[in-house]
Parts: sequence; C-alpha cells; structure tokens
Amino acid sequence: MQTLQVELGERSYPIYIGADLLARAELFARHIAGRQVAVVTNETVAPLYLDALTRSLAGFEVATVILPDGEAFKGWETLQTIFDGLLTARHERSTTVIALGGGVVGDMAGFAAACYQRGVDFIQVPTTLLSQVDSSVGGKTGINHPLGKNMVGAFYQPKAVLIDTSTLATLPARELSAGLAEVIKYGLICDEPFLVWLETNIEALRALDQAVLTEAIGRSCAAKARVVGADERESGVRATLNLGHTFGHAIETQQGYGVWLHGEAVAAGTVMALEMSSRLGWITAAERDRAIRLFQRAGLPVIPPEDMTADDFLKHMAVDKKVLGGRLRLVLLRQIGDAVVTGDFSREILDATLAADYRALVEQLKD
Amino acid sequence: MQTLQVELGERSYPIYIGADLLARAELFARHIAGRQVAVVTNETVAPLYLDALTRSLAGFEVATVILPDGEAFKGWETLQTIFDGLLTARHERSTTVIALGGGVVGDMAGFAAACYQRGVDFIQVPTTLLSQVDSSVGGKTGINHPLGKNMVGAFYQPKAVLIDTSTLATLPARELSAGLAEVIKYGLICDEPFLVWLETNIEALRALDQAVLTEAIGRSCAAKARVVGADERESGVRATLNLGHTFGHAIETQQGYGVWLHGEAVAAGTVMALEMSSRLGWITAAERDRAIRLFQRAGLPVIPPEDMTADDFLKHMAVDKKVLGGRLRLVLLRQIGDAVVTGDFSREILDATLAADYRALVEQLKD
Repeated sequence: MQTLQVELGERSYPIYIGADLLARAELFARHIAGRQVAVVTNETVAPLYLDALTRSLAGFEVATVILPDGEAFKGWETLQTIFDGLLTARHERSTTVIALGGGVVGDMAGFAAACYQRGVDFIQVPTTLLSQVDSSVGGKTGINHPLGKNMVGAFYQPKAVLIDTSTLATLPARELSAGLAEVIKYGLICDEPFLVWLETNIEALRALDQAVLTEAIGRSCAAKARVVGADERESGVRATLNLGHTFGHAIETQQGYGVWLHGEAVAAGTVMALEMSSRLGWITAAERDRAIRLFQRAGLPVIPPEDMTADDFLKHMAVDKKVLGGRLRLVLLRQIGDAVVTGDFSREILDATLAADYRALVEQLKD
Repeated sequence: MQTLQVELGERSYPIYIGADLLARAELFARHIAGRQVAVVTNETVAPLYLDALTRSLAGFEVATVILPDGEAFKGWETLQTIFDGLLTARHERSTTVIALGGGVVGDMAGFAAACYQRGVDFIQVPTTLLSQVDSSVGGKTGINHPLGKNMVGAFYQPKAVLIDTSTLATLPARELSAGLAEVIKYGLICDEPFLVWLETNIEALRALDQAVLTEAIGRSCAAKARVVGADERESGVRATLNLGHTFGHAIETQQGYGVWLHGEAVAAGTVMALEMSSRLGWITAAERDRAIRLFQRAGLPVIPPEDMTADDFLKHMAVDKKVLGGRLRLVLLRQIGDAVVTGDFSREILDATLAADYRALVEQLKD
C-alpha cells in the first residue's frame, strides 16, 4: 500500500493506494470519529462493492443511500435523497459520510457532507480511475445546474481517500480510458517525465497491469496533492488542473450531461487547448501531435462533436468559472509540462481555434 | 456609527451599526472586490429599501433577486431562484452577494453565496431586529428540510455586516418583540448586567428609541462576536447561543414553519429551559420568574402551544443538531448569566419539564 499526504494544515489528510483496501477495516476505523456512518453509492457500484465495504464497517451504525447512476442525476433532486436518508436514519452531526463510487457519487456525497447540519466528516472511496486520480482528491464537491456544470458546490476536504485499485477490474474499458485522460493531463501540465513514462506504459495501463496502475495513480495523486496543497481554493495554480476543461465543459453541456464521459470531453477539449497553444507559438505542432497520439492510444476521442459550432462553444464558455472580469481565461501550455492560466491571447486566435478542422488535423497523423 | 469586529483570523470582519447606513456607499464599496453585485431581498423589504441600497451601489453591475417572504419559503426551491438569477445574469466567481432583509433572506443568500461556484463574497444587511442581533453575525447559513429546520447549510462568514437601525421603523411590532427574545437571551446566557439594563429599558426599546436600540444591538452583537470568535464551528461554547432553541425548534416544526415567529418560539422554549434549570436546582424559581416577566414585557409568548404533548417535543428533539452520541444535550442555566450545554440530567427531569403546566406557572405571576 502506498500512502500520500495532502498538506492543508489542519485539513491535511492521507491518500491510501493499493489492492484490496476495501477489506482493511482498520483504515476506515482510523478516520471515523462517531458511531454512525452513511455510505453513499449508486445502483451500479452497490452490487459490486457495498457488501465488502459494509463488512469493514461492522461495529458502526451504518445507513446506506443508493443513488441512480450517471451524470444526468447529479442535481438537487438526487442530492435531496442523501439528506432524506441521513435524516430518516437520524444521523447526527458526528456522523461520517463515505462515498463509494465514481466522481458523481463523490461530488454529491461530498457536497451532502459539506451541507448536512452545516458539515460532517467525509471519506472518499473512489472506484473509477477518473475519480481515483482526480475528483476524489482536493475537496471539490458539488452538483450541476441546468445553466452550468458544477455551478453549485463547496470546497470541502475529506478526512481520508482510500483507493482500492482492485475495483478497476470491473470498470468498463470506456471509463478506464476516460480516467486516462486526466492521468495524461498531469504529464502535460506539470510532469513531462511522467508523459514519457506513460508513452511507454499506456498499453499496460489499458490491460490493467496492477503494478503499472498503482504507479500511475500514485504519480497522478501526488501531482494533484502538490497543486491543491499550494492553492486549495483555486485562486491561482490550481486552475491549471483544468487543462481542456473549459472546452470540455462546453462539449458536455451542449451534448447533454452524460452523453460524452467527462474524461472524453476533457481529451477532446485538451486537443483544442493544445491547438490554441500551438497557434500562439508556445508549443510546436509536433508536440501537439505527440499528445494527440497518446490520447488516441488511450482510446479517447480527440475531435470535438462535428455538429458543435464556434458559437455553441462561446455560449457555454461565457459562464465558465474561470471567466474573470468579463474576460475569458484559459489553461494553455507554455511548453509540454508547463501549463498557465491566461487571458493573454487575441480573439482571433480563439476564433481560429474554435473553427479549426480537427478531423483533418487528426487524419494527417495517420500518414 | 458603532463598529465592532468579529475576530476569526483571515475570516475576520466588521459590524457597522448606526442610523441611515444604507446611504453610505463607501461602506459597501470597501467590501466589494469585483464589478458585479447580486442583491437578494424579499417582496416585503424590496419596496421599502431596495432603491436606497441600489443608489449606494451605483457604478457596480447589479442584479436583483426578490424572494417570497416567510420561513415557509426557506427551502431548496427558493434557493434555486437565487442560483437562477446569478447564472442568468452571468455572475462570475468574483461577484458579491448582498442579503437585504431578515434572517430568512440572510440565511438563504448566505448559503447561496457559500455554494455558488463553490463560494463567492457576501455582505449582510439585516433589516429586522432578530437578524441584526443574531443571524447576520456568525456565519450560520442554510435552509430547512421537511424533516428538520436548518438541516442543510454551511458555516460561511460575510465580508461585513451593515446594520441600519433606521430600518426598524417599518418593522411590525410583533417582529420587534421576536427580536427582543434573542436580545434578552444574551443577558441570560452571559451578561447579567445587560439583563438589568434591559429591565430598565425594555419599554424604550419597544418604543424604538434609537439611542437605546443602538446600545442594545451593539451589546448583543458584541456578545455574539465574542462567542463566535471563540468557537466558530460550534464545537463548544457557541452552542450556548441556542438557549431555548431546542424546545423552540420543536415548537416551530410541530406548528409548521412560519406560524410562530422564530423569536416567539425561542421565548417559549427559553421558559422551558429555565423551568428545567430551576427543577435541577441550578436557578431559583424567582430567577425563572424574573426572566418570564421580562419576556412578557417584551411582548413575547411564554407558554408553549397547549396542543403540543411531551411526545411531540421528544419526536422533534431527537433529530436536533445538539444530539450527541444518541444522548440529548440541552442549553441550561447554571445561574443567570451563565449557560452550559449539558446532557447531565435525568430523563425524569426532562419529562417533568415537558409535562409542566406553564399556563398555571404564568398565571401565578399575576398575583
């Protein structure tokens, strides 16, 4: 088992990474202060792992809330069912909420923990690659609003994150690939040697080689922990974690939540950010293409939806959280391994990026 | 103008108290970091004070959200209209939410500010006595759930609190009395000399003597600021501010939110807490009666609803946030001016308190 620490003063917490952690009752007990525990999971994950988790919680008074599965349910109505479950089971302010599932479960259970009785303890048990390397670490929680993704939420840190790598055995291949989009992101924004390592190991990751997976998850979480420790509330460097996310959120919103997986939208969105960085002369076309090839080998889409116009993108990007002072700010690459958040680009470059022919760009890579 | 400071490290903020503060544009500008401001108020307060506030916000991009009036609307549906307003007006993470109104407006606008894009700046402009002396200071925000009052919310501190005492001129007498319940509370829990002062000045307060009002509000806010500064997240002494609130919440829940005013329920609830303290031998019957007389002179109910049984109380009290480890904890008085949070009482004393004949108890005061 690997243990990392997210350094946030009195809100610091450990990340445990390893096989079969769900069976390690002592890891849970170490972070549960009261006698009540509320497990929040969904209808897909519950049949697979709820029993294993519940066995490790013997001795606690356990309530379970099972949510419908999918980003489409990441709204207030579903959140309300968590509060209903907590109140019906008479859970007190000393309860601990455990999120067992992917990013949607973690975001909603975390937000529910942040708000229930103005805040109760919270443990993340992410079961998808995407949530293991990204959303379970750093304290971002929330729900979607019809007018924007993650528009309602809280910064709320867990007491611990337990990453059981064995759970990836049941993850659909498409979702594994979606998780790899965020893994590749860490290489692009802050760790070029990790990108080289990924170029060597991408097939082993897709084949679920446990040792390779553990290393990739550890390096990803360490990168995220460093960034979050330096900037918990995203006033600066933390925003670089959103490489590809402004374009990606526009894709998700336009297509309807849940049609594209988040990681898929991030991959295509990152290609757009790379194209723009290349148009600005910050990275070369060859560097852009190097990243596109890696996304392709990871099984990810690299072309935005063909029916999405530049106006569609602009409409959704105008309400993005990274808009400051009415001016659009984007995460771009100064070079591979060095991301910046910047509004320092012309409107023409943005328009050209939105109008670029990504299909042709990808086609030429086959030559 | 009086200025107090709530000391919370990097989350410290000032409370301004005085006449005609709504016209002091510079007080607002001092605490607004961006160019956008969202004023949240309700249909009763808007016709009275929205224009005055808007004039002081000239130069900012101002959006306004007008909520229906009343505790019955303190739920998710109404909160959602605030998010709708912010998103429709494309308010960014740098916006400042201003709550103009009573406690319901402040709790909801504050919770919306805590959650919108995971937290934006927030200024309290309380226009009722209750919110001026209590809910606007200390950072408690939230909404009600069908199964419990204030069950969903956040600790979220404002950047400033502006208390314009002139706004009390339009406050209905019944609501002024409700505010006095919390003023009297400060005397009971931590400031016996203030209780003596109130016994001298209660009629002047009800007659809206501005100098006397300003002193009462200043002393109440100073008491609250001290307690909140010592215990922001209510792990200890802050809970003493809830004197009468456990019994009072049960009354509000049973009767339906909004039938009894919060301050009215607190007054009757405090009489029950005093009766229990007296049964425990901690205060004398004469001290209990001294407080009851002051509540009566303030125009407040001192008898719980006659149709409420002991079982009704117990049912609602079992989900109270002060329940710890399955054991009911209550705020009681060791003596006048010295409150404690304690579970150190027998079930018999609690049952006797719930079964006491409050009508007879109050009747004998007339002799």
